[in-house]
Amino acid sequence: VSIDDTLFLRIDGVDAVSGAGTVSAADRGLAYGDGVFRTVRMACARVPAWTRHARKLDADCRRLGLPAPDHAAIERDLADIGLRHSDCTVRITITAGASARGYRRSDGARPTLIVRASPVPAWPERFRTDGIALHLCSLRLASQPALAGIKHLNRLEQVLARSEWSDPAVPEGLTLDQAGGAICGTMSNLFILEAGRLVTPDLTACGVAGVQRERILDWAAASSIEARIEPVPLARLLAADALLLSNSVIGAWWAASLRGRRFASPAWYPELCASLGRDD
Amino acid sequence: VSIDDTLFLRIDGVDAVSGAGTVSAADRGLAYGDGVFRTVRMACARVPAWTRHARKLDADCRRLGLPAPDHAAIERDLADIGLRHSDCTVRITITAGASARGYRRSDGARPTLIVRASPVPAWPERFRTDGIALHLCSLRLASQPALAGIKHLNRLEQVLARSEWSDPAVPEGLTLDQAGGAICGTMSNLFILEAGRLVTPDLTACGVAGVQRERILDWAAASSIEARIEPVPLARLLAADALLLSNSVIGAWWAASLRGRRFASPAWYPELCASLGRDD
Repeated sequence: VSIDDTLFLRIDGVDAVSGAGTVSAADRGLAYGDGVFRTVRMACARVPAWTRHARKLDADCRRLGLPAPDHAAIERDLADIGLRHSDCTVRITITAGASARGYRRSDGARPTLIVRASPVPAWPERFRTDGIALHLCSLRLASQPALAGIKHLNRLEQVLARSEWSDPAVPEGLTLDQAGGAICGTMSNLFILEAGRLVTPDLTACGVAGVQRERILDWAAASSIEARIEPVPLARLLAADALLLSNSVIGAWWAASLRGRRFASPAWYPELCASLGRDD
Repeated sequence: VSIDDTLFLRIDGVDAVSGAGTVSAADRGLAYGDGVFRTVRMACARVPAWTRHARKLDADCRRLGLPAPDHAAIERDLADIGLRHSDCTVRITITAGASARGYRRSDGARPTLIVRASPVPAWPERFRTDGIALHLCSLRLASQPALAGIKHLNRLEQVLARSEWSDPAVPEGLTLDQAGGAICGTMSNLFILEAGRLVTPDLTACGVAGVQRERILDWAAASSIEARIEPVPLARLLAADALLLSNSVIGAWWAASLRGRRFASPAWYPELCASLGRDD
């Protein structure tokens, strides 16, 4: 992967002449990680479940006290990306904007909107057919209810967790909370399957509550698969029948192995993948 | 305070033509808060205790797995700032640099160095003579030993804590950890004075271990004032004789009030301030 994999970049409605599009050095996104983002998949020039993503952006901005995003601007950018790159990933970043020095937001600060498209990672097909190997991260996530669930720009925990391994055959790592409860992957949400029932960890203290997680919960309800949100201590996870990792770019992966333990593929895995690929 | 209070801005050795100097939108500092910073005071064209700041930058970069900073480049920028603005604040930011999408750092990524000078805030003289009023923040800091002590770019906790009050007569807020132990101010380190003895909270789980805190501990040792690093539950803090808040821009402030409780000024406060203003 090259350092600059940008296919398209637009900042506050202005196209960047190259991938090295620029943001003010005084931007609070850069200074403090003061902002939110989403990474979505564009397929056939559409973003599946865009309405949910837009709603999640609104909710995350509200939680941080940022103004509601300019949906018209974002949707214009997405449409323009779709015309040029019908299949790609798109990261939408909204920061608190440029500001005077200091943690306090300036009254007149205007948010910055950064929309950047990158290629879909070239993951091997066997990740779907054979399942993935999952790394167990030693970094433990902090408990912070004020930020839990939000896809904000303070992602050093994920950066440190992702730096623990480099084997390209291992595409994801599992992170636990300080008490040893399983929370999520570095870039994905987690589900375990126990005797036919889905369980996804409670995210009120840490983790990101992803749109794909919400869609899987809804799919389970529509498919008469019982699903619960509960704490998942590591021992419970290791005793599960199957593990799923989800995000809006990968859809869902099943984990074949973690710490020497083998897991199966859920019988309904193909149906789930097909459902996640559809718009809703 | 205007939104753009930049006096000087240089990015990787290149002067910005205006305060809106620009950084790549693909920079990991912006994408994930992947980087560190320091804010220092320049006085008479010098940065007091620069050697300590340089050492702290090194230590913070090492903890995040970033390359050692280019001290020659930073010192050149500081010297150039000193020629134009002999009295100002300078923020030195080092990010992991531009990178392909994803939490994993690209192998070829080069750090970004951003050096930005701003005016010294116009705090009223009475903050020193009469002490400051301190807000007790309701936001509680997360416990994260992997990041504790580091002045990194993930500062949403401080942004949220600072957004809790807007009274300009209250210049700082006190933040507690999840268990209710006092840790630090939103932008400063904390000391309490108990029967002539200084105590500063233990920062192995959260908070930033500032250079000014280290200098105050050294000053106390040189002044035969006993100083300890210990947990400081809120009740202990409220029972203290005096509270001090320190950082490299303010030096040290004493708090006159917190939650209706009044505190005194330490007898040696003028000597401490004089000492912190000297180089060492």
